[in-house]
Amino acid sequence: MRKMFVLAALSMTSPLFAADPAPVPYPEGYRQWVHVKSMTINQGHALYDTFGGIHHLYANKKAEQGYKSGKFADGSVIVFDLLEAKVADNTVQEGSRKVLGVMHKDSRKYKDTGGWGFEGFKGDSKTDRAVGKTAASACFQCHTAQKNSDHIFSTFRR
Amino acid sequence: MRKMFVLAALSMTSPLFAADPAPVPYPEGYRQWVHVKSMTINQGHALYDTFGGIHHLYANKKAEQGYKSGKFADGSVIVFDLLEAKVADNTVQEGSRKVLGVMHKDSRKYKDTGGWGFEGFKGDSKTDRAVGKTAASACFQCHTAQKNSDHIFSTFRR
Repeated sequence: MRKMFVLAALSMTSPLFAADPAPVPYPEGYRQWVHVKSMTINQGHALYDTFGGIHHLYANKKAEQGYKSGKFADGSVIVFDLLEAKVADNTVQEGSRKVLGVMHKDSRKYKDTGGWGFEGFKGDSKTDRAVGKTAASACFQCHTAQKNSDHIFSTFRR
Repeated sequence: MRKMFVLAALSMTSPLFAADPAPVPYPEGYRQWVHVKSMTINQGHALYDTFGGIHHLYANKKAEQGYKSGKFADGSVIVFDLLEAKVADNTVQEGSRKVLGVMHKDSRKYKDTGGWGFEGFKGDSKTDRAVGKTAASACFQCHTAQKNSDHIFSTFRR
């Protein structure tokens, strides 16, 4: 009984327990989700070191609705699928996966970062996390500028 | 009665009536389909005049199965969504739609072109057709080289 109470207390984000944010789940099945838009970031861009390459954005059903309504419900998940940009013979083709970025909406769990949990899974790994506890500084610091669009930079390309 | 017979005869692709291929339907709802892969074709490439820009491939459910099994069932539809590549500030971003290419599997209707109907809808139009009766020379002439993969060039990026 006492053990259950302790676990419950630790799992809450209360002022008494300034807990680390809950881990963002790996977005299983995201390759079947709707494709939002794509972009390539080349050398010379300020974000090249972090986001250089071809990225595709995918949205689950709830996030797809969010792009339409401008407000993302809890359970919305957006994936930022970053691949190497292979330049050859006047083409740019998709290479290896560099990182799989994830934004996962849960107003309660991630209330300190706009209701969004942020994570980056390295390469094709489902467990090797690039962000972890650093979401506030590594991700939200930029995304907070997009407060008027629920902290999302992208729009759905028609 | 006689009129019905004439219409039926004209709609058949028989040796007696070398009919034009049936029009390929516009792929309604394709933006909700699964994203197969993407590529950018730049100036200097042999296919630049026709396919220059960013293209995304989308597959309906049957075509998605086809990518897995290597054989595309009738009803499979693959979309080649070609957008202008806007280059600015060390990024390449999606611009206006240039053409929406479609491959539509129907072994009977399109038996002369590997069972695939080919069409290109210009820009955002659902009616302005770029290919029409020229599919054999404009499309199949290249796609026939891919006979071993059911005339498909692309593979599903994981």
